Amino acid sequence: MKVIIAGSYQTRFGELWERSLLSLLMEAGQGAMKDAGVQASEIDLVVVGNKLGGRISEQDHLGALMADKLRVKGRGIRVEAACASGGIAVHQAVQAIKTGEAETVLVLGGEKMTDKNNGVVGAALMGAASEEERRTGLSFVGLYALMARAYMEKFGARRRDLAKVAVKNHKQASLNPKAQFPREITEEMALKAIMVAEPLGLFDCSPISDGAAGLVVRGVKTKKAGKREVEILASEIATDSLGLNERESLLEIKATKEAAGRAYVSAGVGPEEIDIMEVHDCFTIAEILALEDLGFCKKGEGFKGIDKPVNLSGGLKACGHPVGATGVKQMVELTHHLRREAGERQADKADMGLAHNVGGTGGTAVVHILKGSI
Amino acid sequence: MKVIIAGSYQTRFGELWERSLLSLLMEAGQGAMKDAGVQASEIDLVVVGNKLGGRISEQDHLGALMADKLRVKGRGIRVEAACASGGIAVHQAVQAIKTGEAETVLVLGGEKMTDKNNGVVGAALMGAASEEERRTGLSFVGLYALMARAYMEKFGARRRDLAKVAVKNHKQASLNPKAQFPREITEEMALKAIMVAEPLGLFDCSPISDGAAGLVVRGVKTKKAGKREVEILASEIATDSLGLNERESLLEIKATKEAAGRAYVSAGVGPEEIDIMEVHDCFTIAEILALEDLGFCKKGEGFKGIDKPVNLSGGLKACGHPVGATGVKQMVELTHHLRREAGERQADKADMGLAHNVGGTGGTAVVHILKGSI
Repeated sequence: MKVIIAGSYQTRFGELWERSLLSLLMEAGQGAMKDAGVQASEIDLVVVGNKLGGRISEQDHLGALMADKLRVKGRGIRVEAACASGGIAVHQAVQAIKTGEAETVLVLGGEKMTDKNNGVVGAALMGAASEEERRTGLSFVGLYALMARAYMEKFGARRRDLAKVAVKNHKQASLNPKAQFPREITEEMALKAIMVAEPLGLFDCSPISDGAAGLVVRGVKTKKAGKREVEILASEIATDSLGLNERESLLEIKATKEAAGRAYVSAGVGPEEIDIMEVHDCFTIAEILALEDLGFCKKGEGFKGIDKPVNLSGGLKACGHPVGATGVKQMVELTHHLRREAGERQADKADMGLAHNVGGTGGTAVVHILKGSI
Repeated sequence: MKVIIAGSYQTRFGELWERSLLSLLMEAGQGAMKDAGVQASEIDLVVVGNKLGGRISEQDHLGALMADKLRVKGRGIRVEAACASGGIAVHQAVQAIKTGEAETVLVLGGEKMTDKNNGVVGAALMGAASEEERRTGLSFVGLYALMARAYMEKFGARRRDLAKVAVKNHKQASLNPKAQFPREITEEMALKAIMVAEPLGLFDCSPISDGAAGLVVRGVKTKKAGKREVEILASEIATDSLGLNERESLLEIKATKEAAGRAYVSAGVGPEEIDIMEVHDCFTIAEILALEDLGFCKKGEGFKGIDKPVNLSGGLKACGHPVGATGVKQMVELTHHLRREAGERQADKADMGLAHNVGGTGGTAVVHILKGSI
């Protein structure tokens, strides 16, 4: 049996003042089911990835809520692993199909972040970090700034190298009508922007976003004739300490290396066979670390960029980062390309894709490998 | 392959001012591993059931946190389904074993509720309910009071019948050194206590509690000689609308009926073969509804009680209800009895047990059936 992505959908990402968490998740669920051509009566299980529903929208218990509101046949659960909640939701869906608990699973990832002020949201996001980091007064950007500084000192990368990541991702977002910031920036704009936590300036940081994404994931024995099929070849998770202070190195994310290593083995492919990827660029430094930890270049060389397309959606940086949605949206983007339906931003070669989703500063990492075929 | 409970542990439940969420989960994890005689290096996966960590203890991302802090070999995830978070965690553990993702899983359920004032906790708990119910100003006890009132009017039950449930469960708790209220009460005490939401008085309500519980769940091919084995014969979940206003009836919890129906089929046993049970008595009326919806008596007769032992631990009512811990703790209690290790409160006949865990007012229900054998 193969596990395929039968349908996918992304809402617009942005500061969506007129939308609620529920309405975003509804749109994603209905959109994914419509894209898959499946009825609610065919859905055995809904898995919702969400981090902040309880703290920001007063709503927990999202698994049952979405199974009910979408009137699906089956039941619902919610999973949470900070910013990797979406990736974990996809992983749990794949697991449920493998046990036979479900044949068709609707995966939803969503977040409504703009309904509270930045202080509340910033504090809530630090729930992904360790108690020691919170007590120290560190913010998320502060944590990644520590990683960036260590990296720059060790490997000689400059702020301009970080800015290149932002410029690239904004350029991609300019081709993406669902993106929060669908416009280009220049290196000079990035370098002159206000500093958030040195060396990370405004354009090194992904934004606070609202949005949702959905996938219909299905176990199938035979391929449907005539339609491009997207198969999930590997779905792997790994976890590590939440706190940077407990890591052996600030120069890598060990959970990414571990999840990727297992994913390559279970898919039977290596990084050289991956055509496109969506990686977790919550900050520009994170994309650079990801390229290295995923095996696309040597340690210390990620800041020079690679030849393959990375974050065609615009990434978390410019498409936006509604935390629970991100891991699901990455797979929606890959699916568009693997099906040759990505429009203006379609990758030339797109037969094998990789999605990489991180929780916190690397407490959790999820890697999926997808294959498209006719 | 069978899925067995290899080890179990419950912390004391109560207002544990000197304890943190992390320390409670650590105690439960270490206790369960010690009871199972397994090392952290043998644990492939940690599944944490928790509802309020983010809102009350500022800590999300509990899966990775506990996998790291307990130094287990594998990885961790967190699941949330309101007060059924613990039951869902056990269910996910069973699923992971069935797919072969894990051989040995540590399940943790825990909650630290007393670190915020009652207003904050009450509001946080309402995250399990629907938006309409929150806007109406209903509290959780208010929701169950609506169900109690409908039940009493329809079937002629009196407040004294509800009080009998509380008296029974306090009597059991008086035999349980881990219980939050290890002391007996009388019907008169219950009837004279302050009213919380008519017809539910103080003693009709489970308390705000801190506590945690842990299980080591394992896939095995052959039984270990000489030790009583506890097998998970069935693990089923069902979901329904979060809001009472969308239900066909206030007189039953449909998700309980559905999960129980499937559990009896998959275990190949009926209610008549169940010797002992732990049911979700967040309010006295909930235990009465559970007896009916689980098939132990006819609709409208649950308030007369049944002949089998129910909530030998003291139930949520008197043992306490740290929400994420409850579904796990129910299975810890059953395991004690099925192994003949329940001490003073050991059930005379205990070969088959049932655990019933509810999220919200029935948005989620989880039913497990356990079998003990020599």
